[in-house]
Amino acid sequence: MSLSELRQDLVTGAWIVVATGRAKRPDDFKNKKEQKPDENLADCFFCDAAKMAKPVLVYEKSEGDWTLAVIPNKYPAFDYSRKLDRRTEGPFSVVNGVGYHEVIITRDHAKHIALMSTTQVMEIVNAYQDRYLNLMNKRFVDYISIFHNHGKEAGASVSHPHSQLIAMPVIDPDVYRSLNGSDNYWHQNKECVHCVMINWEKENKKRIIFENKDFIAFCPFASRSAFEARIYPKFHAPYFERITPASKIQLAEALRIVLAKINIGLDNPPYNFFLHTAPCDGKDYPHYHWHFEIMPKTSIWAGFELSTGIEISTIEPEKAAEFLREQEI
Amino acid sequence: MSLSELRQDLVTGAWIVVATGRAKRPDDFKNKKEQKPDENLADCFFCDAAKMAKPVLVYEKSEGDWTLAVIPNKYPAFDYSRKLDRRTEGPFSVVNGVGYHEVIITRDHAKHIALMSTTQVMEIVNAYQDRYLNLMNKRFVDYISIFHNHGKEAGASVSHPHSQLIAMPVIDPDVYRSLNGSDNYWHQNKECVHCVMINWEKENKKRIIFENKDFIAFCPFASRSAFEARIYPKFHAPYFERITPASKIQLAEALRIVLAKINIGLDNPPYNFFLHTAPCDGKDYPHYHWHFEIMPKTSIWAGFELSTGIEISTIEPEKAAEFLREQEI
Repeated sequence: MSLSELRQDLVTGAWIVVATGRAKRPDDFKNKKEQKPDENLADCFFCDAAKMAKPVLVYEKSEGDWTLAVIPNKYPAFDYSRKLDRRTEGPFSVVNGVGYHEVIITRDHAKHIALMSTTQVMEIVNAYQDRYLNLMNKRFVDYISIFHNHGKEAGASVSHPHSQLIAMPVIDPDVYRSLNGSDNYWHQNKECVHCVMINWEKENKKRIIFENKDFIAFCPFASRSAFEARIYPKFHAPYFERITPASKIQLAEALRIVLAKINIGLDNPPYNFFLHTAPCDGKDYPHYHWHFEIMPKTSIWAGFELSTGIEISTIEPEKAAEFLREQEI
Repeated sequence: MSLSELRQDLVTGAWIVVATGRAKRPDDFKNKKEQKPDENLADCFFCDAAKMAKPVLVYEKSEGDWTLAVIPNKYPAFDYSRKLDRRTEGPFSVVNGVGYHEVIITRDHAKHIALMSTTQVMEIVNAYQDRYLNLMNKRFVDYISIFHNHGKEAGASVSHPHSQLIAMPVIDPDVYRSLNGSDNYWHQNKECVHCVMINWEKENKKRIIFENKDFIAFCPFASRSAFEARIYPKFHAPYFERITPASKIQLAEALRIVLAKINIGLDNPPYNFFLHTAPCDGKDYPHYHWHFEIMPKTSIWAGFELSTGIEISTIEPEKAAEFLREQEI
C-alpha cells in the first residue's frame, strides 16, 4: 500500500491527494477548543537539520557551519520508493503517490525571509534551482511545486523558516488551467498573456510594488485576495530552472523587498508564496511565463469562495499596492 | 462608483470580486494577535431580523411569531441599485457588481442545523427554493449561489445560524468547470457523470453516510478535504428549483442527519455547505445534476493547496464515511 494516492475528480478532471501514509484516525479530526502551546525552541528538529536528517543538499559557510539544508519530508505526501501504478477504480482514475517531497531549511530559527539579507534569500533561490534541476528529469516527475508557508494560520506546522518542494506524476489543476489559458492566448494573439499584463502594469504604474532591472512585483488587477503580490521576470521566460546567476540575485532582491514590505505594513502576517513554472514533462511550453505568487492570509475562505471559486477581495489592488509601495524597510 | 466590481483573470478566465463598498483601509488588515471577544447575545441583530430589517421573506408560526426571515445583506458584495456595466480596462474585462445578496435567518440563536428537527430544516430548504424562484428570472442574474457558513473558522462573522444567497451576473469558475465536465461526459458517454458516480457509490456502499428514498449522502471517492460529504438526488435532476414538496422533506432529512453526524462525530466543527445547480441564464443544462457539498473545516489551506489546487486529504474517504455512518444521533 502506497503512502498516498492521487484520485481524479470525474467531473472537473482535478486531482486529489488522499494521504494514506499520513492518515489520521477519525478522532484526530475532532474540533479542538484548546490551542497547542507553542513549540519549545530546544525541540526544533529543523535547527539541526543538516546533522540529524540525511540531507540531499547542504550549503556551508565553512566546513560544518551550514547555512541551508534540504532534507526529505518526514511525512511525505509523495514518496519515491515505489513504482508508478496507474489504475482505475470503478469509473475513476487513480495513480499512487510516487514522487519527492523535500524541505528546504535555512539555519536561523527566528529569521524569516522578510528579515534576511538579499544574499541569504539568494541561497534559497539557489536551492530551489539546484533541487529543481536535480529532480526534473527523474522518471514520473511531470511537475515540481515549490512553496513556502509562513505562520501557523498559513499552514506552517513548524515555525522554523522552511520551504517545500513536491515533485509529482501529474500536472496539477491550477497549473493546467494557467497553461491552458496561456496557450490559448498565445495562439489567438501571437503573444504571451503574461507579457501583455506586465507591459500594461508598467504603463499603468498604479499596482507596482517594486521593480529592478529584471523583475517587477505588482498586485494583480484581478487579485484573488487582499494584498496578493506577483513577481515576474520582465523578459519572456517559460522555465524557472533556466534563470541565470545575474537574474537570480535580482529575484532574491525582489522577493526579499516584497516580503519585507508585507511584514512591516501588515505586522508580520501569515502568508504563502509559491512558484508557477512550465512543467518538466518533456513537452515544450513556449507560451508560459514563470512567476512567484505571494498570498498574505488576511481572511478566511468561506462558503461563497468554496462554492464558487470567486474570492472577495476587500481592498482594491490599487490601494494595496500603494500601501505596500510606500512602506519603508 | 459601484459597491463592488468583478474582474476577469486574463489567463484562467476566473472572475474575482473586488468589493469597493465593503473596502477597508490598509491598516485594517494588520495581523491581529488578540482575538475579539465573543459577541454579546443581547446585541445580536439577527435575533430581531424579521422586525428590524426590511425582510424580503418571513415565515411565521402565527402572526408576529416568526420562524425564518430573509433580509438583504447589510454589507452586500452585490447590489441591485445600479445598471449592469460591462467594460474593459486595459486588456481586462470588468463587470460592476450588480446582483442580490441576501441572508436567510432561522430564529433560534443557539440552534444550528445539526440540532434542528427535519421540519425546521425543511423551512430552510423552502426558503432557498422560494428566493431562488423569486430571483432567477431577474435581469442580469446568471447564477445564484446559496451557501451556509457555520463557526468562526469557517468564515461565519455572526454566530446566529444563517445561510446566504448571492445572485450574480456571471457564472462562477467552479460551477463553470463542473458544468463543462458534465457536458463533455454527457456528449461522450450519453449519460450523466453524476448518475454514474451515484450508481457506483450505491453498488460500492463503502462511502455512503445516509440514504433515503430520494437522496443519497456519501463521502466522494475524490474528496477534496477530510470528511467532505455530498448529498445528491438519486434521480437525474439538473435544476434545484424544480424540487417537489415530497422530495424536499427528504432533502431536509438527509441534510439534517449528515450535519448531526458531523456535529456529534467531530465535536461541532466549523463547516461550510453550498448548493451547486444549473445556472439560470436562460440556457438548458440537461446534463447537470444538482447537489449539496458539505465541507467540515479540519485543516488550513497552505502553500501546496494554494499553488496547485490539489488538496491533501489526510483521511481516506472510506474511513471518514464509515465513521460518520456509525455515529448515533
